[in-house]
Amino acid sequence: MNELHKILQELIGLNEIDWGNFSNKLIRKEFNAKTQIVKEGSVAQNLYFIESGLLRTYYLLDGKEINTYFACDKQFISTYSSFISQTISYEILETIEDSVVYELSYQNLVALYKESSKFEKLGRIIAEKNYLCVLDRTLSMQTKTAKQRYLDFIKNYDKKIVQRIPIHQIASFLGIAPESLSRIRKEISIS
Amino acid sequence: MNELHKILQELIGLNEIDWGNFSNKLIRKEFNAKTQIVKEGSVAQNLYFIESGLLRTYYLLDGKEINTYFACDKQFISTYSSFISQTISYEILETIEDSVVYELSYQNLVALYKESSKFEKLGRIIAEKNYLCVLDRTLSMQTKTAKQRYLDFIKNYDKKIVQRIPIHQIASFLGIAPESLSRIRKEISIS
Repeated sequence: MNELHKILQELIGLNEIDWGNFSNKLIRKEFNAKTQIVKEGSVAQNLYFIESGLLRTYYLLDGKEINTYFACDKQFISTYSSFISQTISYEILETIEDSVVYELSYQNLVALYKESSKFEKLGRIIAEKNYLCVLDRTLSMQTKTAKQRYLDFIKNYDKKIVQRIPIHQIASFLGIAPESLSRIRKEISIS
Repeated sequence: MNELHKILQELIGLNEIDWGNFSNKLIRKEFNAKTQIVKEGSVAQNLYFIESGLLRTYYLLDGKEINTYFACDKQFISTYSSFISQTISYEILETIEDSVVYELSYQNLVALYKESSKFEKLGRIIAEKNYLCVLDRTLSMQTKTAKQRYLDFIKNYDKKIVQRIPIHQIASFLGIAPESLSRIRKEISIS
């Protein structure tokens, strides 16, 4: 919880009263590995701040899992499009490892928006960050080679994500065939 | 300007004082067709509200133009990733037809954020809308047929955009070869 307090102080300059209002609305939850927190076809009711663990969002395309996002300690995650539009989720939110998270409901976030412009700012920052993230992923797929996409991934993502996400899941996230990614990793380790 | 006032009243419940603060920061500009308002490699300094006209954003991939967004009367447009992150734009913002716009600078928008939570809300709504838009486009490319993408386009986009954007530019936006889109349009008009 201290970590989240620090992050919010940096992002939106939260004072003690704001923090009290915010933290009262959080629920601490523990999930075992491979738990589906948001199922396909349901509406995402919560935004999660990760205390510890490893999670992913993905969707199914012709029975194949396509990963769309990974997050670990001190990061936010949700099936975001479903959460902000309160419509049915095409994505699944699932733990990869045992995880401890703080849950903030949509209703409580909307209540916070009304309490202070700082929370509107938080909502805007999260939306802008998610926009840049999905745009970067889309553009990378269109304009960069598989090797460059993997090099960007290991440079930009948290070490825990790079080291602990199974390689076939990274391949699905980067839009690379698993055997091609294995070859790229060998090339990089040799050079 | 009245149109923008109405839209903001609906979106964020703007009162007269807020509207005064906001409208004082707008600059009305007229651009001829085919004017590059934001050039590739520059930083987008402004968000635009369109009074009348037709605009697009696009980037160059191996010398080919890839359209990323179209907007017309009563809509917002910018090379948005460059605008919110104040980094160099990979996109170009260009008028398709003669256009009249109201320009709001990044500095003025940041000043508005500090004045009222309503403007933070506006920033959040625009960011969320843009997130859903880029996600929908990416997913459509991955999961829908060319015909379905075109049917969605004519259903969801403003009539002015559907009727007046040249067909080769719609094809580039939808990721369809121009000759395939011509065939699809013939199929639809026959059926």
